[in-house]
Amino acid sequence: MPLSAESNSVPAPNYLELTRIWSRLYRYNHLASIVGWDRNAMMPPKGNEARAAAEAELNALIHRTRTDPQLTQWLQAAEQEKLDDIARANLREIRRDWRDANALPESLVEAKTLAGARCEHAWRSQRAANDWKGFLSNFREVVKLAREEAQLLADDTGLSRYDALMDRFEPGVRAADIDRIFDDVKQWLPGLISSVQVRQENEQANEPVIVPQGPFAVTAQRALNQEVMTLLGFDFSAGRLDESTHPFSGGVPEDVRLTTRYHEGDFARSLLGTIHETGHARYEQNLPRDWLGQPVGTARSYGLHESQSLSFEMQLARSRPFVGLLAPLLKKHFGDQPAFKPDNLHRLWTRVKPGFIRVDADEVTYPAHVILRYEIERPLVEGDIEPDDIPALWDEKMQSLLGLDTRGNYRDGCLQDVHWTEGAFGYFPSYTLGAMYAAQWFAAMRRTQPGLDAQIAAGDLKPVFEWLRTNIWSQASLWETPELVRRASGEALNPLWFREHLERRYRKNND
Amino acid sequence: MPLSAESNSVPAPNYLELTRIWSRLYRYNHLASIVGWDRNAMMPPKGNEARAAAEAELNALIHRTRTDPQLTQWLQAAEQEKLDDIARANLREIRRDWRDANALPESLVEAKTLAGARCEHAWRSQRAANDWKGFLSNFREVVKLAREEAQLLADDTGLSRYDALMDRFEPGVRAADIDRIFDDVKQWLPGLISSVQVRQENEQANEPVIVPQGPFAVTAQRALNQEVMTLLGFDFSAGRLDESTHPFSGGVPEDVRLTTRYHEGDFARSLLGTIHETGHARYEQNLPRDWLGQPVGTARSYGLHESQSLSFEMQLARSRPFVGLLAPLLKKHFGDQPAFKPDNLHRLWTRVKPGFIRVDADEVTYPAHVILRYEIERPLVEGDIEPDDIPALWDEKMQSLLGLDTRGNYRDGCLQDVHWTEGAFGYFPSYTLGAMYAAQWFAAMRRTQPGLDAQIAAGDLKPVFEWLRTNIWSQASLWETPELVRRASGEALNPLWFREHLERRYRKNND
Repeated sequence: MPLSAESNSVPAPNYLELTRIWSRLYRYNHLASIVGWDRNAMMPPKGNEARAAAEAELNALIHRTRTDPQLTQWLQAAEQEKLDDIARANLREIRRDWRDANALPESLVEAKTLAGARCEHAWRSQRAANDWKGFLSNFREVVKLAREEAQLLADDTGLSRYDALMDRFEPGVRAADIDRIFDDVKQWLPGLISSVQVRQENEQANEPVIVPQGPFAVTAQRALNQEVMTLLGFDFSAGRLDESTHPFSGGVPEDVRLTTRYHEGDFARSLLGTIHETGHARYEQNLPRDWLGQPVGTARSYGLHESQSLSFEMQLARSRPFVGLLAPLLKKHFGDQPAFKPDNLHRLWTRVKPGFIRVDADEVTYPAHVILRYEIERPLVEGDIEPDDIPALWDEKMQSLLGLDTRGNYRDGCLQDVHWTEGAFGYFPSYTLGAMYAAQWFAAMRRTQPGLDAQIAAGDLKPVFEWLRTNIWSQASLWETPELVRRASGEALNPLWFREHLERRYRKNND
Repeated sequence: MPLSAESNSVPAPNYLELTRIWSRLYRYNHLASIVGWDRNAMMPPKGNEARAAAEAELNALIHRTRTDPQLTQWLQAAEQEKLDDIARANLREIRRDWRDANALPESLVEAKTLAGARCEHAWRSQRAANDWKGFLSNFREVVKLAREEAQLLADDTGLSRYDALMDRFEPGVRAADIDRIFDDVKQWLPGLISSVQVRQENEQANEPVIVPQGPFAVTAQRALNQEVMTLLGFDFSAGRLDESTHPFSGGVPEDVRLTTRYHEGDFARSLLGTIHETGHARYEQNLPRDWLGQPVGTARSYGLHESQSLSFEMQLARSRPFVGLLAPLLKKHFGDQPAFKPDNLHRLWTRVKPGFIRVDADEVTYPAHVILRYEIERPLVEGDIEPDDIPALWDEKMQSLLGLDTRGNYRDGCLQDVHWTEGAFGYFPSYTLGAMYAAQWFAAMRRTQPGLDAQIAAGDLKPVFEWLRTNIWSQASLWETPELVRRASGEALNPLWFREHLERRYRKNND
């Protein structure tokens, strides 16, 4: 138990007090996770009001615990105590969590929550009505409060406004890093997209892709998903797969709760979604047991979490070797179809087509959606542009990045995401960071294990899992994100690996 | 909202503070109920340790809240405030809940929990090994602590030891009431049991009962249960049916969670168990909405709760009119069988046979099991007998009440129940009180609605539900149990109605 003060050679009473409080918070958060999962996956509609009251009570309790004035003294005193490296890292994470809860005055948090809820609620119908003007009237207040929030966090951390927001999602990653990476991507991505499209259109003209014929019974889909999760190492004695309208990975590291949604006409959406969530799940299920209950034992960041789900969904599941493993399972659960030939499945699952909607985007065009949002939300938070400027910027960037005309189409343009409506700025980069980390992990794996793809094709996924366990899962929050990346892959985040992955799979048709 | 102090013509600030604390406790208990349900119905095994820690943290929080020293002053002051009748009843229930939490020193609660857990754990293997001597070595400590507990509660309430324990389960019911009732039952029950057995054996010789032939697919059983629950008025938009090893009714009034357990060879166990739990559920689902969140809005007592489950399972479901409603549903879900004829089903579900095991007992012999336990646990708690005396008393009473020889068979005798192992004395009478209340409700219904059985046979259950809603469900904890019984049925608990029910169904074969 390297986290307890007892493991230190010297007593550290203040640090010990802090670990006790954060153990308590861990248990409160356990309750919050389970009832939250229940609300989404199990609760009947009339339970909603009482549940909301119970969850609000718990959240208030968690907030009181994290903002107890006593913590300030313990933190200051603990930082002077002699601690081993793991305890030191844990204290850093306790400080981060404490700052998240204490940096902002409660009045601002409440005002922002209220404005965000109002804006989000109105947005649901405004989006359908393509009503940008109506949206603006609420959104201006959300931006105003988000800037205040960012400024307070910036004052507190010495970072810029946007960096301060992003640090809550990607500890240690800065806008300067993102600029470097996205500027590189912008050089080669549009060219890659168009050449892949040309290749795929020619292919389609010669030999059309065969679409699987449904219906696919939900019971068969469920059995297939469970078998694939088992193949991917999900531990069903420490987790479950259920159903919810919006699939997610919830629960706690000791008991991970995945959800999916079945469509009788299309098994692949649920299957690939489940594989995605299984990546999140394995990270949680394999966090170091000894550290659980303390902040250093939690998953590192949103981008790193996404690197696990995308390692499973994009790097692994859509690769030729893995599709070869899936094909016989489809036959087993649904009966045989010409569409289940591995080559055909691979073509189906790697089709590239620029579109308006981020959440429907393929692996190649997705980064364009993220870059566009980053290039708008960053100056918006910094105060360099105003909400009124967004549509024109959106149109211009969609044109230059994806060649699409979005003028006047707010519904499928700047009104499509929920993030901004609630004032959640600084999160979007995590999606593409995740995709890039995943490519960098697989490149590093292949360097040390040249036979990796043959092993995967033979059904042996252990080398992948062992690499992830050693380099990511077991490290939890011991390091800031950039340090973890260097230790895992031998270098800082390098967009070259993501480019190489896309080139290999989509241009050279060799993955 | 008759519960808020605002509804009083005069301000009642102390009462108002108390209602705020008990609203908070209601929300904490909501969390506890949902994660408890999840543990039993959903949680995979490896989640257990973290869940136990989270639940213990929540229980400690609930305990701190109920024992806050500030409450003492508020209670004393509130009792001097001018309150309307409902608020007055609520304050009485707040006082009861406060006393439950504060009457016992924490050291005793902990010692009793520990001794109970140790005894219960060892009992699991001792029961299988028929090891009474081994059990005694732990059980003596459990009894010693239970006596201390009872004495402290007795000092606090002015009741006898056993009355003080029983008052936590059946507010207002005393051992003197139980004596009066059980003495009456002991006069006629043994004779009834033997005459029913003779009649049923003759019947069986003339025309053997036909046993339904399985397997009965779990999906069909589930659909049947859901249809019967709907027939019984269960609101699926405010509750669920799931599966667990030990079926129970959990959740919260706004979201009731029932569980059952399926056996492919026998659908009736799950069906009748589900009907039983549905009785509990309808009580919870129909507690008065305006009072929810306060103690006066909770179900009255364990015996009254059992009166609802037994109203559904015994009074309703095993009656000829209701069996006539079930028969076509069995056909619909399982296909036709000769065993599904209403007369045959009724004979199957009303078979009487004295046996060793309480939980397997039929409606007629069940009270004998309860009387036996009451007559042992009461003097045990009062200090009139010692743990060593139990087996001889058990043998004697099983012989006189059910004509069974249990000598030396501890496994199926005094070691069969979990209750005593954990020191839960004073609960057993609730089972038979529940059966008697249920018979008294149906007798009262038939007095005011002579056509009741014809209505039930025609599928119209509304008169039953409306009577229960008016007289039981809507009254929640407004009255002490005996007062509620008088208001509902026009008289105190009267074992005559239970006797009449058994005579009619089992001797006259006319129900």
